[in-house]
Parts: sequence; C-alpha cells; structure tokens
Amino acid sequence: MERILSNQNNRVKAWAKLATRKGRLEQRTYLLDGWHLVQDAISAKAKFHAIMATAEQMEVHLPDVPHGVPAFEISEEVARHIAGTNNPQGIFAEISLPQKTFDPSYVFDGQWLLLDKIQDPGNVGTLIRTADAAGFKGVILGEGTADAFAPKVVRAMQGSQFHLEVLQGDLNVWVDALIKNGLEVYGSQLNENAKSYLEVPAQSQFGLILGNEGQGMSDELAAKTSANLYIPLLGQAESLNVAVAGGILMFHLALGK
Amino acid sequence: MERILSNQNNRVKAWAKLATRKGRLEQRTYLLDGWHLVQDAISAKAKFHAIMATAEQMEVHLPDVPHGVPAFEISEEVARHIAGTNNPQGIFAEISLPQKTFDPSYVFDGQWLLLDKIQDPGNVGTLIRTADAAGFKGVILGEGTADAFAPKVVRAMQGSQFHLEVLQGDLNVWVDALIKNGLEVYGSQLNENAKSYLEVPAQSQFGLILGNEGQGMSDELAAKTSANLYIPLLGQAESLNVAVAGGILMFHLALGK
Repeated sequence: MERILSNQNNRVKAWAKLATRKGRLEQRTYLLDGWHLVQDAISAKAKFHAIMATAEQMEVHLPDVPHGVPAFEISEEVARHIAGTNNPQGIFAEISLPQKTFDPSYVFDGQWLLLDKIQDPGNVGTLIRTADAAGFKGVILGEGTADAFAPKVVRAMQGSQFHLEVLQGDLNVWVDALIKNGLEVYGSQLNENAKSYLEVPAQSQFGLILGNEGQGMSDELAAKTSANLYIPLLGQAESLNVAVAGGILMFHLALGK
Repeated sequence: MERILSNQNNRVKAWAKLATRKGRLEQRTYLLDGWHLVQDAISAKAKFHAIMATAEQMEVHLPDVPHGVPAFEISEEVARHIAGTNNPQGIFAEISLPQKTFDPSYVFDGQWLLLDKIQDPGNVGTLIRTADAAGFKGVILGEGTADAFAPKVVRAMQGSQFHLEVLQGDLNVWVDALIKNGLEVYGSQLNENAKSYLEVPAQSQFGLILGNEGQGMSDELAAKTSANLYIPLLGQAESLNVAVAGGILMFHLALGK
C-alpha cells in the first residue's frame, strides 16, 4: 500500500481541492470524512476512487473495505490537511458524485423537498437528513443553494445522500412538473393568503419549498404553489431557523393529523 | 468619546476574555455582537456596561443608544479581535449576565424546556430561539450543557434571552419540583415504554427534556418523567438533529392536535 506523508503529494493536492465546488466538478468526485460515512458508502455500493487512512485507522478498518478499492496510508498531518479540521478521525473515501439526470415530468408520487437559495451548509445538510428521517423521496437543490457535496453539507447529511435522491435542478421546472402531475406543492412565503400548517392534513405525495434564511422563497415560485404555509409563532421570536421550520413542516405533512 | 485602536488595550483584553466562560464569570458580563442584538438589549432595558463600535457604525447608531451608556470607538482590527470572526458588523455591547435566582418549587404553570448535556452551542442557541417562538416560559440548562452566554450560543439565540427565562439549574431538582407541582414532564429517551409524540395532545403546562446529541438524556432523569416520547422515523436516517427534534416536539406539544 502506498504511504503518503506530504501535503505536497499530487494526490493530496487533488483531495484537498475537493473541498471546493470547482475541484469537485473537475474531478467528478467528493470526500467522505470518517468511518461511519465510509461504511454507509460501502453499504450503498458507491463508486470508490480511493480510501485513505492513518496507520491506526487502516489497521482497524481495512478488513471491511471491499477488495479492489485503492487504499492509501496517510500521515496525521495529511489527514488534517484533507479534512480541513484539526481532529479528523483519520479515515476518508473519495467517491463519485452521483451522475443522475432526473426528469421531474416522470414524478407522480412521493414527498419532495425543494430548497430555494438556502445558503448555510449546515442548514442544507440538516434539512436533507430530516427529509430522509421523514420518509421523503428526494430533495432538490435549486440555484443559489449550498452545494450538496461541500464538506459541511456532507457532515450534516450524515449519509442521507445514500438513502434518498439528492438532486440539483431548476425549481421552476420542478414545481411546474409536480403540479401538472397532480401533486400539491406547498410554499412557505408569509403572504396574506398563507395558511397555518396545522390546517393541512398529512398526505403521501406533495412538494414543499423552503426559502433563503433571510429573504424567504422567490415570489415567482410562491405564485405557483397550491398554498403557502406558515408556522404560528406564540412567543416573541421573529422567526425560526430554517432547518427547524423545515423539520416541523415535514413531520407534520408526513405524519401529523 | 474614547478611541481604542490597539488589541493591547486593557479594555479590549477584558472584552476578548468574555469569549470564555471563565472571563464571563469573573466579569459577570457578556458580549452582544451586531446592532440587532444591541437593539434587543435596549428594548429589554438590559444593564449596559459599554457600547463599542467602529466610527462608521457609531455614526449610524449612537443616536439610538440610551444616554449614560459608556461608548467607545474601536478600530476594525479591534472589532475583529473582540468578535473572534473575520467580518463582524462592527458594533458590540457589554451587558450584565442575568442575576436571577429561580426556585422551581414556585413554578406551577407554563411550558419549560430542560437541556441535559447538549454540547453544541449552535444547537443550544437554536433550541432557546425555538422555545421562544413556541411560547415557552423558560429554558433550563443543566450541567454539561453549553453555556448560554458563549458567543456562538448568543448568535444562535437571536435575542431570545430577552424574551424568556434562560436559567442554569440542577435538572433533577427541576424535574422533581415540576412533577410535585402537578406538571407532566416528558423525556425523550428511546426505551421500551416510550410513546409516539403524536399520541400526546397539546397542553399549556409541562416540562420537556432533551438530551445529549450522541448519548441522549440521563437514565436518572428519564426514570422520573411522566412519559418518554419518540418521533417515528419513516426513512433510513438513524436520528434527527437535536434542534430539529426539539422543534418538532415543542411545536406539537404547544400547538398540535
């Protein structure tokens, strides 16, 4: 097994570049940090390009890595460099970005979350994890939403990209297609026609749009929706964190009464 | 007005120390970063020790600062040093920590959130903000929970500390007192007797305990609760982020059917 001890090594430079969107699009891969995610990728039969681990981690986990995956032993320093954090676990995988093309005109059922310009990577990752937990079929990331395969998003998703569709798409095209195919699409713009989410019963197929942390969702999308929902606030807080609001709406629409 | 241009200035050193729990306990104050929070503190008639702003911010906001609050003009560099971030807005206040002593044996109503060893400051702040939005009376931070006045918690609370009680306390004492006073106390330990949160109707007075991100809540507390609630997960995610789970439970118990 090749041992890599320097951050100047060309492979290390390429792995470090996967922290940027440009690097990911050039190499068509992204990084998983930590055994838990690597294990999820193995279960999901993801396409592995490499597995990299410190001597200690390699000893523990190599027996569980599928044969044929190129393995590299790295120093602690290289591990920190690739992770971009101070205390990485010390085991990583480089896997292919999903290649899916997905045409929403063939979507006739299921629950779909649409993210309109949600910028914080932690919020995006947490929303994908929550959609997974609520049994959604997929999450569509519109233009201006944080990239699903950025390191902070991958950390917050906790492997949910292996459980449901995580797609980039034009939200206008998606909303038009879902409505044409008979699904309700709920927005979350607080306008005079918005109704309390508690008035909407649970249902097995719909779209739900969440918008930017500060600005909310776009007017163009809000105008297309079947209804805009709001969460009544009882205290003095002006708003909810978008990941929390998304959790309340998703679980109510999926499970509530 | 005194102008402060150096990070070596003794006042600046003292403000920078407020980023640590030790510094806050010694000085009995904490920092607000940004005009929105400073404004909340003015509305709440908080006890101001100082207001610090860059020349630009001071010019805009000084007219709205109450007379008698000591004001200091600081350089951009000092602003970054105090904030501990690269792009602070450039206006801060140093205000007193709340002095409250609060005896739970006199709590007979309202909705109370109890946090058992929740470590991530973003989660703690978001949970306090969500409790505010759901109309809760207060949040009690047990031992091992991130300090409510740490910078990242203050940022995530978004001023909710001025809207509801934010208290440190012994959760065992709190749970005993609430139960003695006739309130239901719900835990969130996933044990064989736990029941789905959807089986519990909305109510106007109760305690809700949330536990550590990885370990959940303590067995000792879970044994005292009226019931332990779980959120049914429909997909493949193993768990929810604790701030999202808290939002779902709080809004269901406060507003649900």
